[in-house]
Amino acid sequence: MTDLVTFGETMLRLSPPEGVRLETAREFDVRVGGAESNVAVAAASLGLESAWLSKLPDSPLGRRIVHELRGYGVETDVAWDGREDARLGTYYLEPGGEPRGTDVVYDRADAAITTVSADELPTESLRDAEYVYTSGITPALSQQAAETSIQLLNAAREAGATTAFDLNYRSKLWDPASAREGFRALFPHVDVLVAARRDAAEVLGRDGDPVEVAHGLATDHGFETVVITRGDRGSLALHDGEIHEQPIYEAETLDPIGTGDSFVGGFLARRARGGSVPSALEWGAATASLKRTVAGDLAAVTPAEVERVVAEGDGGISR
Amino acid sequence: MTDLVTFGETMLRLSPPEGVRLETAREFDVRVGGAESNVAVAAASLGLESAWLSKLPDSPLGRRIVHELRGYGVETDVAWDGREDARLGTYYLEPGGEPRGTDVVYDRADAAITTVSADELPTESLRDAEYVYTSGITPALSQQAAETSIQLLNAAREAGATTAFDLNYRSKLWDPASAREGFRALFPHVDVLVAARRDAAEVLGRDGDPVEVAHGLATDHGFETVVITRGDRGSLALHDGEIHEQPIYEAETLDPIGTGDSFVGGFLARRARGGSVPSALEWGAATASLKRTVAGDLAAVTPAEVERVVAEGDGGISR
Amino acid sequence: MTDLVTFGETMLRLSPPEGVRLETAREFDVRVGGAESNVAVAAASLGLESAWLSKLPDSPLGRRIVHELRGYGVETDVAWDGREDARLGTYYLEPGGEPRGTDVVYDRADAAITTVSADELPTESLRDAEYVYTSGITPALSQQAAETSIQLLNAAREAGATTAFDLNYRSKLWDPASAREGFRALFPHVDVLVAARRDAAEVLGRDGDPVEVAHGLATDHGFETVVITRGDRGSLALHDGEIHEQPIYEAETLDPIGTGDSFVGGFLARRARGGSVPSALEWGAATASLKRTVAGDLAAVTPAEVERVVAEGDGGISR
Amino acid sequence: MTDLVTFGETMLRLSPPEGVRLETAREFDVRVGGAESNVAVAAASLGLESAWLSKLPDSPLGRRIVHELRGYGVETDVAWDGREDARLGTYYLEPGGEPRGTDVVYDRADAAITTVSADELPTESLRDAEYVYTSGITPALSQQAAETSIQLLNAAREAGATTAFDLNYRSKLWDPASAREGFRALFPHVDVLVAARRDAAEVLGRDGDPVEVAHGLATDHGFETVVITRGDRGSLALHDGEIHEQPIYEAETLDPIGTGDSFVGGFLARRARGGSVPSALEWGAATASLKRTVAGDLAAVTPAEVERVVAEGDGGISR
Amino acid sequence: MTDLVTFGETMLRLSPPEGVRLETAREFDVRVGGAESNVAVAAASLGLESAWLSKLPDSPLGRRIVHELRGYGVETDVAWDGREDARLGTYYLEPGGEPRGTDVVYDRADAAITTVSADELPTESLRDAEYVYTSGITPALSQQAAETSIQLLNAAREAGATTAFDLNYRSKLWDPASAREGFRALFPHVDVLVAARRDAAEVLGRDGDPVEVAHGLATDHGFETVVITRGDRGSLALHDGEIHEQPIYEAETLDPIGTGDSFVGGFLARRARGGSVPSALEWGAATASLKRTVAGDLAAVTPAEVERVVAEGDGGISR
Amino acid sequence: MTDLVTFGETMLRLSPPEGVRLETAREFDVRVGGAESNVAVAAASLGLESAWLSKLPDSPLGRRIVHELRGYGVETDVAWDGREDARLGTYYLEPGGEPRGTDVVYDRADAAITTVSADELPTESLRDAEYVYTSGITPALSQQAAETSIQLLNAAREAGATTAFDLNYRSKLWDPASAREGFRALFPHVDVLVAARRDAAEVLGRDGDPVEVAHGLATDHGFETVVITRGDRGSLALHDGEIHEQPIYEAETLDPIGTGDSFVGGFLARRARGGSVPSALEWGAATASLKRTVAGDLAAVTPAEVERVVAEGDGGISR
Repeated sequence: MTDLVTFGETMLRLSPPEGVRLETAREFDVRVGGAESNVAVAAASLGLESAWLSKLPDSPLGRRIVHELRGYGVETDVAWDGREDARLGTYYLEPGGEPRGTDVVYDRADAAITTVSADELPTESLRDAEYVYTSGITPALSQQAAETSIQLLNAAREAGATTAFDLNYRSKLWDPASAREGFRALFPHVDVLVAARRDAAEVLGRDGDPVEVAHGLATDHGFETVVITRGDRGSLALHDGEIHEQPIYEAETLDPIGTGDSFVGGFLARRARGGSVPSALEWGAATASLKRTVAGDLAAVTPAEVERVVAEGDGGISR
Repeated sequence: MTDLVTFGETMLRLSPPEGVRLETAREFDVRVGGAESNVAVAAASLGLESAWLSKLPDSPLGRRIVHELRGYGVETDVAWDGREDARLGTYYLEPGGEPRGTDVVYDRADAAITTVSADELPTESLRDAEYVYTSGITPALSQQAAETSIQLLNAAREAGATTAFDLNYRSKLWDPASAREGFRALFPHVDVLVAARRDAAEVLGRDGDPVEVAHGLATDHGFETVVITRGDRGSLALHDGEIHEQPIYEAETLDPIGTGDSFVGGFLARRARGGSVPSALEWGAATASLKRTVAGDLAAVTPAEVERVVAEGDGGISR
Repeated sequence: MTDLVTFGETMLRLSPPEGVRLETAREFDVRVGGAESNVAVAAASLGLESAWLSKLPDSPLGRRIVHELRGYGVETDVAWDGREDARLGTYYLEPGGEPRGTDVVYDRADAAITTVSADELPTESLRDAEYVYTSGITPALSQQAAETSIQLLNAAREAGATTAFDLNYRSKLWDPASAREGFRALFPHVDVLVAARRDAAEVLGRDGDPVEVAHGLATDHGFETVVITRGDRGSLALHDGEIHEQPIYEAETLDPIGTGDSFVGGFLARRARGGSVPSALEWGAATASLKRTVAGDLAAVTPAEVERVVAEGDGGISR
Repeated sequence: MTDLVTFGETMLRLSPPEGVRLETAREFDVRVGGAESNVAVAAASLGLESAWLSKLPDSPLGRRIVHELRGYGVETDVAWDGREDARLGTYYLEPGGEPRGTDVVYDRADAAITTVSADELPTESLRDAEYVYTSGITPALSQQAAETSIQLLNAAREAGATTAFDLNYRSKLWDPASAREGFRALFPHVDVLVAARRDAAEVLGRDGDPVEVAHGLATDHGFETVVITRGDRGSLALHDGEIHEQPIYEAETLDPIGTGDSFVGGFLARRARGGSVPSALEWGAATASLKRTVAGDLAAVTPAEVERVVAEGDGGISR
Repeated sequence: MTDLVTFGETMLRLSPPEGVRLETAREFDVRVGGAESNVAVAAASLGLESAWLSKLPDSPLGRRIVHELRGYGVETDVAWDGREDARLGTYYLEPGGEPRGTDVVYDRADAAITTVSADELPTESLRDAEYVYTSGITPALSQQAAETSIQLLNAAREAGATTAFDLNYRSKLWDPASAREGFRALFPHVDVLVAARRDAAEVLGRDGDPVEVAHGLATDHGFETVVITRGDRGSLALHDGEIHEQPIYEAETLDPIGTGDSFVGGFLARRARGGSVPSALEWGAATASLKRTVAGDLAAVTPAEVERVVAEGDGGISR
Repeated sequence: MTDLVTFGETMLRLSPPEGVRLETAREFDVRVGGAESNVAVAAASLGLESAWLSKLPDSPLGRRIVHELRGYGVETDVAWDGREDARLGTYYLEPGGEPRGTDVVYDRADAAITTVSADELPTESLRDAEYVYTSGITPALSQQAAETSIQLLNAAREAGATTAFDLNYRSKLWDPASAREGFRALFPHVDVLVAARRDAAEVLGRDGDPVEVAHGLATDHGFETVVITRGDRGSLALHDGEIHEQPIYEAETLDPIGTGDSFVGGFLARRARGGSVPSALEWGAATASLKRTVAGDLAAVTPAEVERVVAEGDGGISR
């Protein structure tokens, strides 16, 4: 039994030391990041049997990804791309204080995963998965990846899994109109939708009261659960006709990258273990908050830490 | 003439880089920390002739401790434990922002110092010491260490020294009842008591108004001076029947570990040089504040810096 | 089906930068090492399904070990020791050129594994293992660990596995007489014996011609295979009455620690995949040689690299 | 055509890691800093053809300076001092939080530049420069440097350049009376004066309303433009009889060193490209703000970043 | 007057710390390398006015390349590729001792330079260049790059420059037959040919005595000068009908990458300053030898160092 | 009782990472070195009570020196120079393999010690010292330092100490003729002379057979002991009319700086403990050999290590 299976691209993340610009850097920290593997790592850290499906170049760089994820206990089910020039997506992250802000340079075109097909993936874990997750980044990568996403969600559901999907709109990958079309192709195969309020507005044209957005999405697409995230203002979920709100837990932020994925990982970890939606929102918020104190995309946290944050949760101040 | 002699355990302090968890760390910063040697270093940095008594394994690790403390000008009077498997206490410090918080993993069981006897220590410096200091951590280490503490304080006093003791209650080493008993065995040999308000409450059952706590302790145990520390709310001292209050000096905190010991070191440094109790409280607060801007347990500060903080002390804002 | 299961202690390995003494170090590289997990990592890197059984403190330090081994694809089957003061063995490795030489300071007394019992270990992988391996370090740790070693080897054999054992004599853990006694208690449960020539001489009193040593050991204890390692002079194996010799492959050595374990890992990897004993010796020698170019105990190598070294093996110069 | 030529001393900047005192440091970050080269780097980063004139020891240390400045696109026109013991000025920067504060230890006495003469400098770039800049540090270094400053400003003006001068009073180099005298000798050759309000008060005896200070300076010395900087309270300029005020743009400060020089670099970059004085103040403020997020003295920023800060400039909050 | 202009691709070079595999690395050293810019840096370090022509993405990564090369005094004449997904070639260099060997993973497909046209390059420096250099890597990148190479060499020659070309065959970019064709298209535009003996054999089918190879090439293609490099066995040149041989200067090799380019840089630096061919071979060999002691592709050396090596040249031992 | 007192300059030693040139370095290792303190550290590491006399700027940099030396157990008796611009000598060490070689850039002109007088030094340790040591670097620093050297050696001898002096000729500080004059002024106050063979030849004009050189020096200047060092060919001593020869112990050299001083430290350590001259030569050679495996100038070694090298001394191969 695998509790959670995720599918998506994972990249090498290269970043210069604090205060140093990419333009002059002589050292990079090497980390690993990708929405779907971030979710798998958060869930695995919280005790779930988690697997991650992807396609990687059969090279030291591809193995670098696997090495990292396995360290956190994630099962890596990979289609290895043996072409000489198979690429691993990379991204350069340059953190910067205001008014400079953090800069990201993507170098992910033509990554191995853009050619992924459902046939070549080792999908054994899908057969008995409880939750299957992907995000809106995957269908944005290529037509092939989009089709594979649909096939996998479909297969998962048929095998009895609950499917979850986070919009994760990336404007550098596609425009809102294309994204809307891509999302709509996937929605029929999705049970749990997670949507940043901003994405719902920009891509799906649903702005206004988040409660109404949640209701609208659930009604129009038949989602079992809709989770709306609103940054510092916390999250809310619509489930079984009820709305549940959850403020964030304040954090001293060292590295904000991966916060949203950690939220999803915490949420699904709790749901997969039978937790209620409100309890899962608490776990999501606590995991996200803890993640912000840790360097890198990955939620290196423990269940005990999440439980403590939830328990002491008066810290859940809504800014 | 030695101005200050301290006695206690000093450990290796290992900590991962900022934002990295122990669970995934590939590098540790190596530092040295222990309440009593922290006090000695603070005092030596402020110009005192300071010595530190302890027992260490006769190994590169034991010598690592001595190397560090000597660098700050502390005389290291060590009983070397030649057993093949003599241990040095270590502690793993993982700093973390809220809500994660800093985590400490101790690995100090059966350290060489748990077998220390007064006979084997090179105690020449005790003969002409002005102040002799230990803390409540030492008697918590072992029965043997507790007895040695009593013997040393007793011998010091007989030789004319003023003795000082900080409760420093550590719940990972003993429970409040055992600590209370251990402290009471030592109190008859103590002239200056330093007590965190929380320790006084938890171990000695003295909560309520700190002024009353100070009076109660002085009356019951005949201390010459009682200093109560209250974290951000500053400190107060009872001496010659008078109460003196001292707010903290605000600091941009880089590393809070060792703040309390630096307070004691600054306080004793001033007292040993003939300063009044209110002036010593100022020095304690200034040393503690400066320490917070420095990485590690040790107060690498100068007398001139302390004097400047005290002089500009309008900064002594009570948060 | 698990190809290889190993059982033993794994420690944190802390080492200062090149040319820096432990006595003055301010940074440690943090690595992970232990004979049996080293073997598992080498085998997993070469494509085997490998599992490692052990007992660890339920702490960030214990999890540090698991994180590392999982990264290399090793399944970690751990009994977690929940006692507050459960210890993880550590060792401090100070590399040094001649005439100083490399120094090792162990701090492994009372590690969690000294209390390990067969009952508490998650031994599911033993049921269908092809090879099961432990080394002479394990029974040296405690009487309890020695008994557990016997029980596990016995159970493995009954389940159909081939058992392998490397003498790995450590003079800091026991004397030759105790070791001999300990080894003899294990020998009836061992199919494949690996012995450094020096260990055979010092502990078992068998010196002289290594071919004779191999024959003597096989005859007296009924081993199916005996492998004798001779440092720079290569190795030899007695199997089915035949002697096979294997020179080393020359290496530019960056870090020699773990060479012997990598040899065993390479040897077993080949055997478990049906390779002949001479072929397995080649794989062992090639894996060991590659390991020497890599920092740390662990053989981060690929099957392709081992195959290339074997193929170009004219490099197999016997110095 | 060179847009901007600057003249002055550039030093090696050595600083320990965060939280480490100079007294105990084992590593220094090596950077390069000097008011006039900082200005040249900021201007070059913003697209100007910039050159820097100086004198350096003909040694690896002197070349270290050139290597750094050229990296940012600054043309380095250097008189090389071939004396065996020619010195490069160095400064040790120890950043520290409050109440400790940042400490600077200068070691710049007898640096090569103190012997600089106009004759030995490769001043070809002066012939067609639009702006020529130096600061009050240069005449403070030596009588010789002071005379050379005058000669260069004079020559630049005759060749048609606009000259700019920042008081940059350094109390460790000379006293206010000497500085006043030195400045007054230069003022007749200056078109654009930049003055920190504090310097104007302390050295020139002009305190009170900054608008009046600007008017007073312009009237008395015939400056074409006077810019008064006021730290957190922003800057103002008097030009063509009009006063223009500019608040700062808030920044998360990582390293404040070089902020003022970056302001000047941004200001001159805009002026040299034909920007109005108010627009140049905006560019100066934005460049200064961005610089504060970058480690080191040098404004590693892009024109696009400056434009964005100016455009989003509601951030221009006056604290 | 520009002494030397080179044209080609320059990449980011990322490498893990010594002894660490790419598969597990958490840090990369960031350096810059490319045959033609390596040559330009070597020549600039030896005092030549050197320029480098290329096409780069208009991004922090592209500017990283420029920053590095400018630091060494190379004029960077770049066509900036403003497409959102314009790529910079990168390569991952994992140094390893024998028998592992150094591994290189290229990620250079579709780099900006593959689209370079002669029109878009700022080729002003070509007009008065003395030497113009490119290598066989450039035409291998794309048909477009190949055509541009021909156009530039042609234009350079027409403007009076001497053109130089190093075969630099890269089997990962094209096969020998394609390379031969590519080289032949360029040969009519080349005056000075540099060929590794191995490349001459593998691509041009010319093996056997290197003297004969040189004569054959000169005769068939009308080169003014032919230089044959033979690794440890040194180099030889045919010029004006005479053969000149040059052994290598022994080096303690820290980083061999860029050795050949440094040879060419040293050779051309001497030729451009009027040195004879034998003297230029000495300079090439000395520069190459010094480079091997320096980390990175770039010959950070001085003319004085090269002169000293040549003068003490008894070190010119032919291994 | 102090076993050994040394007097001389100690500098900050700054060096770039391996393979990086000073010209491009962004990081320096910070270490401490000086012939006389190197000797004191070696002796203290070997168990002697050692003191070091010097003059330092009263600044964090001066305190940096003291911090380092105290760490090794050396008593630091310092005259603090309170002048604002008092300097600490620094030297930049750039290690480089052949043919580049190691480069040293000194920046020591006008260091505080050049103004040192005997009166201002805290010379209490001289009163009961057994050995007093300085080297030929000290009188080369300034006339004042030369006079102080004579006064100290004279005072030491009158107080009953044996005085030792190492020529340590530095051509960057003075020429041979001046050095000869300076040395001759000191010789009447010296009991034990240590001379590198090369220095004896270059400065004192004594070349030829080292045995004759030793006899000549002893005869002409009345030295009690003369030690001649000959690099790889070992050392010899003339004492009581007898010649004792000592080969070196081979070492894998990581950092050769400080080898000679470690030899002297080991030699004096043994002599001060009553060892014979041949035994002291063994200790000197062993200490020097061990030092070469350690980074930095300082002999961080233990008596046990020296004893082991001497005992296993077949390693004493004369190359």
